[in-house]
Order: sequence, then C-alpha cells, then structure tokens
Amino acid sequence: MNTAAQCPVGVFDSGVGGLTNVRALMERLPMESIVYFGDTARVPYGVKSRATIEAFTAQIVGFMLEHDVKALVIACNTIAAVAGHKVRQMAGNMPVLDVISAGAEAALAATRNNHIGVIATNTTVNSNAYAREIHRKNPAARVQSVACPLFVPLVEEGWLDHEVTRLTAREYLKPILADTADTLVLGCTHYPLLKPLLHREAPGLTLVDSAATTAEAAARALCAHGLLNDGSGGAPDYRFYVSDIPLRFQTIGERFLGRSLQQVEMVALG
Amino acid sequence: MNTAAQCPVGVFDSGVGGLTNVRALMERLPMESIVYFGDTARVPYGVKSRATIEAFTAQIVGFMLEHDVKALVIACNTIAAVAGHKVRQMAGNMPVLDVISAGAEAALAATRNNHIGVIATNTTVNSNAYAREIHRKNPAARVQSVACPLFVPLVEEGWLDHEVTRLTAREYLKPILADTADTLVLGCTHYPLLKPLLHREAPGLTLVDSAATTAEAAARALCAHGLLNDGSGGAPDYRFYVSDIPLRFQTIGERFLGRSLQQVEMVALG
Repeated sequence: MNTAAQCPVGVFDSGVGGLTNVRALMERLPMESIVYFGDTARVPYGVKSRATIEAFTAQIVGFMLEHDVKALVIACNTIAAVAGHKVRQMAGNMPVLDVISAGAEAALAATRNNHIGVIATNTTVNSNAYAREIHRKNPAARVQSVACPLFVPLVEEGWLDHEVTRLTAREYLKPILADTADTLVLGCTHYPLLKPLLHREAPGLTLVDSAATTAEAAARALCAHGLLNDGSGGAPDYRFYVSDIPLRFQTIGERFLGRSLQQVEMVALG
Repeated sequence: MNTAAQCPVGVFDSGVGGLTNVRALMERLPMESIVYFGDTARVPYGVKSRATIEAFTAQIVGFMLEHDVKALVIACNTIAAVAGHKVRQMAGNMPVLDVISAGAEAALAATRNNHIGVIATNTTVNSNAYAREIHRKNPAARVQSVACPLFVPLVEEGWLDHEVTRLTAREYLKPILADTADTLVLGCTHYPLLKPLLHREAPGLTLVDSAATTAEAAARALCAHGLLNDGSGGAPDYRFYVSDIPLRFQTIGERFLGRSLQQVEMVALG
C-alpha cells in the first residue's frame, strides 16, 4: 500500500454544518482519517460576496494542503456553488468532491418526473449552481430554486419542531408546492435537521440530503485513484479545526456529528 | 478653533446596523465629519467567542486611529458588551461612546417602576453588560434580559410585519410580558426596524432605541472635550468603509441609514 493512501481526507465548511458530511464519511469509509476545518469565526458565507468567499476558500484550501490531504470534500453548498473552480484549481490532480454535484446526482436518481425543487441559502440560489449541475447531467430536467435564509438560524435556535418554523417552511415551500416537483434537494448542510418537519409539510416530495451521496462519491473517487486506506497503518485519526469556538459550539457540533466532538483545535486563518 | 475639532468621529459596527447610529449623529451633529466601518465580511459577531470579538475589534480600532478620529462611537451592542474595555484602552484620552451606556441611561430615564426588559443577541445577553450598566447607575433597578437570535435574520429577510415575526416576538417576549417591566431596551441595532411590530405585541412597554441617546451623549462628550466642529472648515465629510459588499448591501444599508448610501469603500482587515 502506498503512503499517499494513508493521508487524511480533508473536509471543510463555513461552519459546523459540514460535520453532517464527516458523519456520513465515518460511516461509509471507516478506515479513512479525516481533517475537518470549519470557518466558525467568519460563518455564515451565504450572505457574503463572491470575491470574499473565494478569498476565504483559498485560505482554507491552503490550510488543508499543509495537512497533506489526499482528497478534498467541499461540505459547504455556498463554497461549492461560488468557489468550486478555485478549489479544483488549487487541488491539482487530487480528487475533489462536493455536495452540489452529489446532491444533483441523487436528485436525478430520485425524481420520477424530472422536476426538482432546491432549497438553499441566498448565495447558493443566486449562483444557480444546482440548476446548472442538474442540467449538465440531464438537460430535460426542470429545476425550481427557493432561498430560505431563515432556516439556518431556526436550526441553530433549536426550533426544529416549532410553529414558527412550520409557518416559515410553509411560506418558503409555497412556490415549490404550487408546481409539480416530486423531489426536493436540501441544499444546505443545516437543513437535514429539518427533515421531519419538511416531510410533514410536503409529504409528496422525496427529500434529498447530499451528505450520504457525497460520502458514496468520495468512496468511488478514492478507489479510482488507488487511494483507499486499507487500515494497515492503524486506526483512523480524526482532527477538527475551527477558526472560533463560540458558546454552544460543542452542543451544536455534536448535534451535527451525531457523536461526541473531542479535541477541537482553534486556528487563525487570514 | 483647533484642528483636532475638524477631525471626524469614528463609528463602527460588526455590519450595517450601526448606520442607524450614523443617521442619528448626522441629525444631532450636522457639522461633524464621520468615518464608518462595518465588518460585513465577518458579521455577525453575536455568535462568536469573546476572544475572537476582541481580536476583530482591535483591528477595527486600529483602522479608526489611522483615520485620525477625535472620538469613537461603538455602534455594535456585542462589541460594546464584550470588548468595550479594549476599545477604551486603545483610545487613550479620546471620548468613547457606546450604545449600551446610552441605552442604559435612556431606559432608566424612561422607566416608572425601575423594572427594565432588555432584548439582544446571545452574546450581548450572556455578557450581562446591560444589567451591569443599569445597576451601576441605579442599584435598585431590576433587569430581565432575553436573547432573540432570530430577529436579525428576520429583519434582513425584510419580514418586518410578517406572521412569523409576530409569533417569534410573542415567544421571545413571553417572559418579559409575564413580569412587570414597563420599559424595553432594543439591545441590537437591527431591532429598531421591528419597533411598530413590537409596539403592537407589547403596547404597555416603552421601547428604548439607543441610536438617538448615543448621539446625544456624543454631543455632550465632544463639547466637554472642546472638540465640537464649528463648521469653519467646510461641509462635513462622510466616509463609509466595509470589509465586504455583499448582494443587497445597498438596499439593506439604505434602509438603516435612511438616505442614499454613496461612495462605500471596501477594505480588508486582519
């Protein structure tokens, strides 16, 4: 086995939401070491300009490369939508997976009528990245996108089953429910926590959560590049880096990761 | 007239909300030049740790000092709550005004029963800064604080008179309405835009918006230090700096400033 295969997979996000991807990777690829970076000092990215998101992303990828990662997973929809090209440029020949490609693929596999709804942050919706990616794979598909900027703060407030969240969901889903979409992409790492509520408000829609699909795509890419870790180097190593450790970080982080979050290190970027 | 008096007043905030303070200063002190800095690339501060807020604040004050300001106005409740001491340390003998001192003073002037409610971001509430400041001025006063993290995104979504915002306000105000407070401090620069809705939900409460009070305090401080600009140097100069110019910046900024927002310059800090 070559030593490159023993290098970690790098996963990054603008905050803690990307931990849902780490969780899916731990389950699908239990031999792989993982380095995670969450830019909690500058979260959220969804309301910032393209130039700023690109600059912040370049700093994160630089940090990842210093950690000798063998592959990169863009766990943030906004980064994938706005700065995916930048990441691939910096990554050279290394496999780069992202939640938008994976989400688009899963949505096309799920839909029966080729009419797909997408909910995401303002920046992701304005970038039109999901529609572009879905059309690239199937030009016959119809995509309808709605920005839902209140969902992230509602999730972080913990109002996962609150009347306010239900009313907000009803308002946001109105244009999608008024049309014929049969599949709904949850285009933001926070949204999977609203799955039960969204399922009740829109029982006719198949919900697509890209974390599992991204992990599957990562497994295929590592295999194709001969980079799968066979475990001969020992137990996997998980490292979590953030740019800030705010109040309630542990609570929120563990909700996303689905297990206890230990040894989180703070680093300054930029 | 000394030349120091012709220097600008520095006003800063984590984002655009501090423009409500600029507006009040323009009205109360029409001869004064103003330099504004909004850290739009790293907003919001209300969810970040004390150490990170202090580090960001030191960078902003450094930027202000490079612009030869004669006084500083901390327009951000979170910065005032967490890093006010840091600002005063760096400012030396220069007058430093802040929304928390001004808000506390206005609340004590307004209350009839010395029972004051405060609504603010998580970080401001957890800092306990309003309660401390109010007690310092009147140890007999009772203060009840509630964190309202959803109000900022609701204001930025423009849902100023929406059923979701009404229900959210009802939920947040419950503990305050259940008690005897007669005065409510709007402890975040975004909240004044919710005044009509809050007034309808809590008609018995006097709402305190610190922008005007802070401008009044600034006028008194400049006068006491012999730093009032008499206008002999010509028309005042207004300069707006931000660390990012995101989508909808102009729209949201003008809503806060109450007039057109021209010549905004982007600068990188940190």
